[in-house]
Amino acid sequence: GHDWRCIDEHHLEKKYDFPNFRQALDFTNRVGELAERQGHHPDIYLAWGKVVLTIWTHKIDGLTESDFIFAAKADQQLNQH
Amino acid sequence: GHDWRCIDEHHLEKKYDFPNFRQALDFTNRVGELAERQGHHPDIYLAWGKVVLTIWTHKIDGLTESDFIFAAKADQQLNQH
Repeated sequence: GHDWRCIDEHHLEKKYDFPNFRQALDFTNRVGELAERQGHHPDIYLAWGKVVLTIWTHKIDGLTESDFIFAAKADQQLNQH
Repeated sequence: GHDWRCIDEHHLEKKYDFPNFRQALDFTNRVGELAERQGHHPDIYLAWGKVVLTIWTHKIDGLTESDFIFAAKADQQLNQH
């Protein structure tokens, strides 16, 4: 597995692996719905068998508590198949 | 608007703009379903108000006719709200 990485003290990034495109797309949708509920939108890179999330707070162009909360909630979406 | 760009004769890339996250997520899903139907999967970069598609043929690590067909079909998904 992979862990969250803090890049340049500016954003959080994590790569998730999946066995196919469908499951990566499903996770993208769960994270997308979470983003709409939270009013906090990550960048989502979706490819065959993987999703990379990048999270930061656009208003300050850096990290706030909201980003770490979103990261934790994104991980929870993995277990909600 | 933006057009398809052919990068390094290796892949096709296009940026689509949307007025919000929801419409970008919806387009991601339409392209994702197209990918599953075609058995040809682009990389999809989804962010607030935009989607960037990157298309190439992994088997030859370059462009084939399938990529141009997929690009045209991806554009058609824009008009299927």
